[in-house]
Amino acid sequence: MTQRSLNEPVTDPLNDEELAALNAANTGFGQHIGMVITYCSAERLECYLDVKPEHLQVAGIVNGGVYAAIGETLGSAAAIVTSGRPAVGMSNNTDFLRSVSSGRIEAVARPVHIGRSTHLWRVEMTHEGKLVAITTLKLMMMEL
Amino acid sequence: MTQRSLNEPVTDPLNDEELAALNAANTGFGQHIGMVITYCSAERLECYLDVKPEHLQVAGIVNGGVYAAIGETLGSAAAIVTSGRPAVGMSNNTDFLRSVSSGRIEAVARPVHIGRSTHLWRVEMTHEGKLVAITTLKLMMMEL
Amino acid sequence: MTQRSLNEPVTDPLNDEELAALNAANTGFGQHIGMVITYCSAERLECYLDVKPEHLQVAGIVNGGVYAAIGETLGSAAAIVTSGRPAVGMSNNTDFLRSVSSGRIEAVARPVHIGRSTHLWRVEMTHEGKLVAITTLKLMMMEL
Amino acid sequence: MTQRSLNEPVTDPLNDEELAALNAANTGFGQHIGMVITYCSAERLECYLDVKPEHLQVAGIVNGGVYAAIGETLGSAAAIVTSGRPAVGMSNNTDFLRSVSSGRIEAVARPVHIGRSTHLWRVEMTHEGKLVAITTLKLMMMEL
Repeated sequence: MTQRSLNEPVTDPLNDEELAALNAANTGFGQHIGMVITYCSAERLECYLDVKPEHLQVAGIVNGGVYAAIGETLGSAAAIVTSGRPAVGMSNNTDFLRSVSSGRIEAVARPVHIGRSTHLWRVEMTHEGKLVAITTLKLMMMEL
Repeated sequence: MTQRSLNEPVTDPLNDEELAALNAANTGFGQHIGMVITYCSAERLECYLDVKPEHLQVAGIVNGGVYAAIGETLGSAAAIVTSGRPAVGMSNNTDFLRSVSSGRIEAVARPVHIGRSTHLWRVEMTHEGKLVAITTLKLMMMEL
Repeated sequence: MTQRSLNEPVTDPLNDEELAALNAANTGFGQHIGMVITYCSAERLECYLDVKPEHLQVAGIVNGGVYAAIGETLGSAAAIVTSGRPAVGMSNNTDFLRSVSSGRIEAVARPVHIGRSTHLWRVEMTHEGKLVAITTLKLMMMEL
Repeated sequence: MTQRSLNEPVTDPLNDEELAALNAANTGFGQHIGMVITYCSAERLECYLDVKPEHLQVAGIVNGGVYAAIGETLGSAAAIVTSGRPAVGMSNNTDFLRSVSSGRIEAVARPVHIGRSTHLWRVEMTHEGKLVAITTLKLMMMEL
């Protein structure tokens, strides 16, 4: 199987080579915070982030901005790869449920609503199997 | 004037030495994203962030997670320094209004509601004088 | 089986008599908008609302405030009956996905996070099987 | 001055006759909850609602859905009359700050962002001069 273009909607799950290409393309803030995408299909995207000192706030727990940034980046990637179109974030609502001070945060993005002009994605973040934060991300879908 | 403890509610604006101490204490994610706090009183906190490649997403504009992280970090600092108490973020709602691809993002945090057990802060972010994003941050205030 | 007090946490689903008591207690705004609760257990509450002219806005579609009110009322009832404690709404985030102009709106409330001091409930509203709106409701739980 | 059409963007404040027409057009849910619009210009809309038993929840305080509905209805009217275009609500985020059990709730809607395809309005609700709730309403603007 040859590598698919990321300008076409993803249908089957990406294979390892394609995931590597997606992570390599996820430069900038996604890379700066240390997010790694591990699964990508039209139904679901997954990533993880290993907590380091640079993710914490003064009290030694993960800064809420990290969860919002994971939700933003994974949800945006989800909208783009499943539609094959550019997308612009409109709003990011992140609820914080539990504190985390170390270890791995895992995130799963699932579509809530796939409209013609907007998408709504929910990104659930867990730590050791417990839900720690949820992002609801609304995006405006652009024409190619 | 001797330096005030950050465990007491801020009343008068912080002086330069105190601001430097506040920025030095803002380690972790605030530092990692490059935020610099420039003003801090009970009525208002201000900061800026100079946009670099590490803040962008694939299309070359600032990743929405950066705005959410600025709102989270400045709003949390605001709740903590104005109350003299620890605070835990409950929810971060960030609306994105305009794209930015370079230059300086300036942010101002102002209190919307200062309750006994919760605070609500609004953080407005501008670029060249235009509003580009707004965070509404709800925090649970803890006892010392 | 005798009727249980609504001051004790609901565990088994309410029976018909108990549901009738819950609806009779749902006076005020819940009644004013015409909401009827049809199922109530610790895992899930359900209700419906039949669209009438008084629910519409000027363009003839259901006013977004109706969805927010359903989410608020069902989610609050959910927090109260499943905890056996009073609850106060902190924030209601409602996303609108599709327009409805007539017929029945059905809603299901499910817990997202049940904490000691706060609850987060998600209320999904459907019309003819399609998702039309979602409310995320955050509540502060009070002591008896 | 003859009465202006509500299909043209409002610039000067509406006069009494025009306000009466706007309230008469605000049928459906706005009327059902008892909202009265008292001021309307491009910079600001104002309304009030007198609290009655039908606005309360079981504990005798105003149901949070009432605030969300006021925010939705006033913010939508604001987007429509200031643009002269139809508008569809995308999301309604309402924060509850204080409880109200009787008297008058006053609301003011002000534009946060007036874009080509979306509007963001903030509706602040007060009771006896104190802020009790805030709605942030995002709308998609339609072509005529």
